[in-house]
Amino acid sequence: MADNTLQSSKKNLVADWDRLAKVFIRPEDDASRATLIKYMERILFGLHDFLKTHVGITEAKSLGELSKNYMRTDINEDPEKKLADVIACLIREIAPHAVNVASPYFVGHMTSAIPFFMVHLKTIVAALNQNPVKLETSKVVSIIEKQVIAKIHRIVYDFGEEFYLAHVQNTETTLGVFTEGGTTANLTALWVARNARLFPKNGFTGIEREGIPAAYRAHGIDRCVILASRLVHYSLRKAAGILGIGNDNVIPIDIDSACRMDMEAFENTIEKIKSESPETCILAAVGIAGATETGTVDPLDQMADICRRHKIHFHVDAAWGGPTLLSKKYKHLLAGIEKSDSVTIDGHKQFYMPMSCGMVYFRDPHILNVIAYYANYVNRRGSVDLGIKALSGSREANSLILDCALKIMGSHGYALLIDHGIETAAGFAEEIRRRPDFEIITDPVLNILTYRYCPKKTRDALARAGKEKKCRISRQLNRANRDLQRLQREAGYSFVSRTTLQNSPGCEEDTVVLRAVIMNPMTDMKVLREILDEQENIAKQVWTSVEE
Amino acid sequence: MADNTLQSSKKNLVADWDRLAKVFIRPEDDASRATLIKYMERILFGLHDFLKTHVGITEAKSLGELSKNYMRTDINEDPEKKLADVIACLIREIAPHAVNVASPYFVGHMTSAIPFFMVHLKTIVAALNQNPVKLETSKVVSIIEKQVIAKIHRIVYDFGEEFYLAHVQNTETTLGVFTEGGTTANLTALWVARNARLFPKNGFTGIEREGIPAAYRAHGIDRCVILASRLVHYSLRKAAGILGIGNDNVIPIDIDSACRMDMEAFENTIEKIKSESPETCILAAVGIAGATETGTVDPLDQMADICRRHKIHFHVDAAWGGPTLLSKKYKHLLAGIEKSDSVTIDGHKQFYMPMSCGMVYFRDPHILNVIAYYANYVNRRGSVDLGIKALSGSREANSLILDCALKIMGSHGYALLIDHGIETAAGFAEEIRRRPDFEIITDPVLNILTYRYCPKKTRDALARAGKEKKCRISRQLNRANRDLQRLQREAGYSFVSRTTLQNSPGCEEDTVVLRAVIMNPMTDMKVLREILDEQENIAKQVWTSVEE
Repeated sequence: MADNTLQSSKKNLVADWDRLAKVFIRPEDDASRATLIKYMERILFGLHDFLKTHVGITEAKSLGELSKNYMRTDINEDPEKKLADVIACLIREIAPHAVNVASPYFVGHMTSAIPFFMVHLKTIVAALNQNPVKLETSKVVSIIEKQVIAKIHRIVYDFGEEFYLAHVQNTETTLGVFTEGGTTANLTALWVARNARLFPKNGFTGIEREGIPAAYRAHGIDRCVILASRLVHYSLRKAAGILGIGNDNVIPIDIDSACRMDMEAFENTIEKIKSESPETCILAAVGIAGATETGTVDPLDQMADICRRHKIHFHVDAAWGGPTLLSKKYKHLLAGIEKSDSVTIDGHKQFYMPMSCGMVYFRDPHILNVIAYYANYVNRRGSVDLGIKALSGSREANSLILDCALKIMGSHGYALLIDHGIETAAGFAEEIRRRPDFEIITDPVLNILTYRYCPKKTRDALARAGKEKKCRISRQLNRANRDLQRLQREAGYSFVSRTTLQNSPGCEEDTVVLRAVIMNPMTDMKVLREILDEQENIAKQVWTSVEE
Repeated sequence: MADNTLQSSKKNLVADWDRLAKVFIRPEDDASRATLIKYMERILFGLHDFLKTHVGITEAKSLGELSKNYMRTDINEDPEKKLADVIACLIREIAPHAVNVASPYFVGHMTSAIPFFMVHLKTIVAALNQNPVKLETSKVVSIIEKQVIAKIHRIVYDFGEEFYLAHVQNTETTLGVFTEGGTTANLTALWVARNARLFPKNGFTGIEREGIPAAYRAHGIDRCVILASRLVHYSLRKAAGILGIGNDNVIPIDIDSACRMDMEAFENTIEKIKSESPETCILAAVGIAGATETGTVDPLDQMADICRRHKIHFHVDAAWGGPTLLSKKYKHLLAGIEKSDSVTIDGHKQFYMPMSCGMVYFRDPHILNVIAYYANYVNRRGSVDLGIKALSGSREANSLILDCALKIMGSHGYALLIDHGIETAAGFAEEIRRRPDFEIITDPVLNILTYRYCPKKTRDALARAGKEKKCRISRQLNRANRDLQRLQREAGYSFVSRTTLQNSPGCEEDTVVLRAVIMNPMTDMKVLREILDEQENIAKQVWTSVEE
């Protein structure tokens, strides 16, 4: 086998049964084993070298040019490549045109380096190939999943030992669900909120069975709305669209100067709906714990109280910020999350797991009954089949990765990463303030901040300018920052993202900002200063067009 | 590092910054590299040995007993284990209580052995950690994903070279989407069908924005229904529930004696709805290509014609059967699939990919526009951001695995696996017929069949019996087969699943059947005969209670 099946040679590539069957057989001889290990070594260290030598998104080859190599759409009848060739091609041809998200200079998105052991853990999960949709294809793995769900539930809700002993392995109750990512976690939360609110009554058998029009009729309503800050992630709008509620019914609530949902606006909106539209049902309110664009956190504690008073399902999107709860120093930033009804947390974000892993947790261990599905061939009543109360069916056992990672890192290990991100972001903000050519737009609360290139002179000009001139300068600034971000990305040394922040009502021009996400522990002040230096240099090229 | 960070020792487990940072650094020295490789070797071959020595689902330890070891729900502040210990624990304590889905004797579910190279490919995907939601975190990987989507689209629809050249790398059009699994693929298909059918009109801005009640009003309807055979996978009902249509509105159509949707019943249902309920909109019809329970295939060609005549979105759930299209010998079994509007195919089923990978394909390259979402920080208009038209946000780049697997296997390699499954299932059916104590319930069309233990004498008694006695014997048979399946599972040598097939209207008692899924190329007639032998032996213990 070492010679024929695995080696990189062009002969004997024709698929035949004997050759094919061998890829399903576990090799017994030392030579074959050594070959398989050698390939693993190439993967780990071939990519290591790439990840070390490249930073950011190089544009040596433009997208259009790259695409030209990927136009063939027929599938070869005979094998084209052996594993060795595929690996070589991935390392030599694909990886260099992928994005080195592991670089300390890649501070643009919520993706970064992951601990090396995560790759090992993912490999184990693939080799075991368990499917937690049902016990018959996962057994102990479903039990471990229930345990790790209880562990994370406990850091959010902290209901005490007795509660967790009662529920951790309870086949009737569910504390949370693993999902593909934050989008499906948020969708699951709103799905549950929708079904729980529009419960069966007076012959109406429930929204899941009869659909939305019947549910609205039974409950005497004509519209459902979801309240969320206008910084809410677009997945909440998408969820409302999918669920048949309509994404126009996600009502954006104004934010205060610190990008937190304005509590007065929140309460006023609720009161207004209640008094003016008695047939509108407020299905849920969403608090953000780590906004995608600004990293800011809504006043969760106050929101929770308001929601409880008005009997509104309170969901917290902590896809980003959730793991902050592991930091003794900064968990207070999420105070009030323990009063929520449901919480989204992503594994592939600040739990530093590989793509892709989302989770959603619920205060009430019984609430997931409103989305339960059974079938004769899977998901039998009273079983530990985890597919019963979940959006997805068959899925990967990512819970094993999180469980192992918690053991390897300890909560303190994660806390160190969280603290580093928050404190480095604060340092970065200071550095930005020190430089006269930059302007902080949103201060970091967690580890995300936005800023822009805007020289002191221009800031002064803006302050003095009349409305029309202000708009003109703003547009020029936006263009300049857009160019700056693009040129830095194309240069390939570092990557800061950009987004457009909606200005407060009254201002006409939205603000294009540079956005930094500090999660890679290798991203330190030296790296960040270099990034700013480079931006200053690039800005000299794009700045000519801005008036003063 | 080799000594301190990676080795299995209990000292120095306290997480501190230096130690922590090291897990993010790529090791440079040979000793550390050797250690990482050694762990990979343990994973590959530690598990290999487990996979070789265990078959099926052993019940040496009961679930209740197992659960007792997984009750702790606090997270240690300091690390509990090093990677070496975690791997050792997974191999020694977890794997033996997981399910060996790779055993040739595991013929109960749609999960089996995967080619060894799949583990390598999954490892590469984890090490690269790209996120195809947006170009900025994936670049060439998004381009490769578009290419592999076009390749699979081509085996389904075969629109010709010109069509694929125009669309394969087109940033405006989309031929398909990767999803977490078949459930989310089916959900995506029905979501698209819903939005396409309830299009914006006369001031109505579309169902995604305004929700279902507004859409129904604008289109003058009061109900949407989805038509599917009663063998349809429960994920279609779940999708209807999530989408706000109501799962009671998935109308089950009768099946014929070969478990295919009855075309007369299908047309009659359509005609009846159209004439009696003009305000009911038939949103979609679902054809099955490989039913979960019976592996049967609906008359896709006829269904397509009927749907086209009535302007109904025709979705094919080929989560299981899709890859049959790669077999020249058996692709005719799916004839008509090329006339569909959308098709679900799972990667983790008959593409033999690791958990979890689903896909959904669309005839019309523009139809996915009805679910497009944009945001300032991701999914920009006109970009290759694949998250624009997808259910999920951030996700794993599983497309790379499929692309590489197609190159390693060739279409002929997959065809050999498909042919083996279909032909072995046919051989198994023959063997069952040869044995007087068994009865085939549903013949295999693809590679799934159902049967039951039912001795000749009992079959004769059933044929002679009056209604009441018939019911009594049926109940006894059901109980016996349930026990038989459980006892075989608990013995741990082999695993055949069971399900309950609804009898045709008229018969009262549903039928408990044993269900075999033949996808592991190592499952041959010798294995299957052993499984039947074992069942005969077990039956002797459980058979006493059945009258004749």
